[in-house]
Amino acid sequence: MASPEIDALTQALSRLPGLGPRSARRAVLHLIKRRETALAPLLRALAAVEERLATCGICGNVDTTDPCAICTDPRRDARSLCVVEEVADLWALDRARLFPGRFHVLGGRLSALEGVRPEDLAIDALLRRIEAGGVDEVVLAMNATLEGQTTAHYLAERIERFPVRVTQLAHGLPVGGELDYLDEGTLAQALRARRPVA
Amino acid sequence: MASPEIDALTQALSRLPGLGPRSARRAVLHLIKRRETALAPLLRALAAVEERLATCGICGNVDTTDPCAICTDPRRDARSLCVVEEVADLWALDRARLFPGRFHVLGGRLSALEGVRPEDLAIDALLRRIEAGGVDEVVLAMNATLEGQTTAHYLAERIERFPVRVTQLAHGLPVGGELDYLDEGTLAQALRARRPVA
Repeated sequence: MASPEIDALTQALSRLPGLGPRSARRAVLHLIKRRETALAPLLRALAAVEERLATCGICGNVDTTDPCAICTDPRRDARSLCVVEEVADLWALDRARLFPGRFHVLGGRLSALEGVRPEDLAIDALLRRIEAGGVDEVVLAMNATLEGQTTAHYLAERIERFPVRVTQLAHGLPVGGELDYLDEGTLAQALRARRPVA
Repeated sequence: MASPEIDALTQALSRLPGLGPRSARRAVLHLIKRRETALAPLLRALAAVEERLATCGICGNVDTTDPCAICTDPRRDARSLCVVEEVADLWALDRARLFPGRFHVLGGRLSALEGVRPEDLAIDALLRRIEAGGVDEVVLAMNATLEGQTTAHYLAERIERFPVRVTQLAHGLPVGGELDYLDEGTLAQALRARRPVA
């Protein structure tokens, strides 16, 4: 019974991850009750992003400039290259501000099941970046899944012929992890990678 | 480290009810990875609503036309008037498609605590609609809260002088309600309003 425009907005919002039909309706009500303070700012923000959205030609990050802000930041150490599966992973690592180098987004992970082959990912672009020189270390920051680790192994083999250090994220107990709630895989990894007490 | 435009969009989305900073970031990533299929449609939907948004001069509903689609629908029974606190309540009742009449939105409920007095609500407009005639029944569909019920009592008194039937939503067990999980207030209401088994 709502107007077609309001229905269309509800539907567009309900397709966002984390929002279903019910919460999308609540969001629409929130927006239309606050036309100046919520609807207009969201519209402006969305239009600005839509207008300028670009994929970085160097690393594959999505930003409003190409090259992206990370690739052009002179304070970042270009000798360290962190390889991730998806833009979301890049953002997660960058949010923590723990990695001072640059990134490379593969655009997925190798998957026999989903038919994702090496040529479907930005692997050649990665190898060209390494070949061009100036990189000392490649950090493989794949997900700790079977496919992520398969991808990491494959990349490690391909990078072997370059004079760079190849590392990967440590696996083990997450911060706050309680042993009797963790899965056996994590416990096995943590035990296998145990280290001497300093 | 994301661009200011992307940050602004994340912030605007994170202010929607049901979305926090984390889910807003996921939503932004979803949008920028699907520029044509998600971002552009949402932008269009939002712009269309922003452009046409109007509050119905008759009932207080928010729609893209004034009078709203409900007030101008000839299939609706103008003799039944359902009074609700908020636009959200109107939508909830209308979604269920159980009420075939028209609505009146008060824009809140009486509240000594929040300093909401009768003149702050669309009560005079309601009385004028009833006074204009053509209304047989006024359904008071306030929330089953102290303030909602206070508002309903107040409205019932004000409407008394008109030759209309005043009713209110039944209180009792919700569908699927299990007695030992329900609060005492609901049980008391259900017991007080008990009916002979048909």
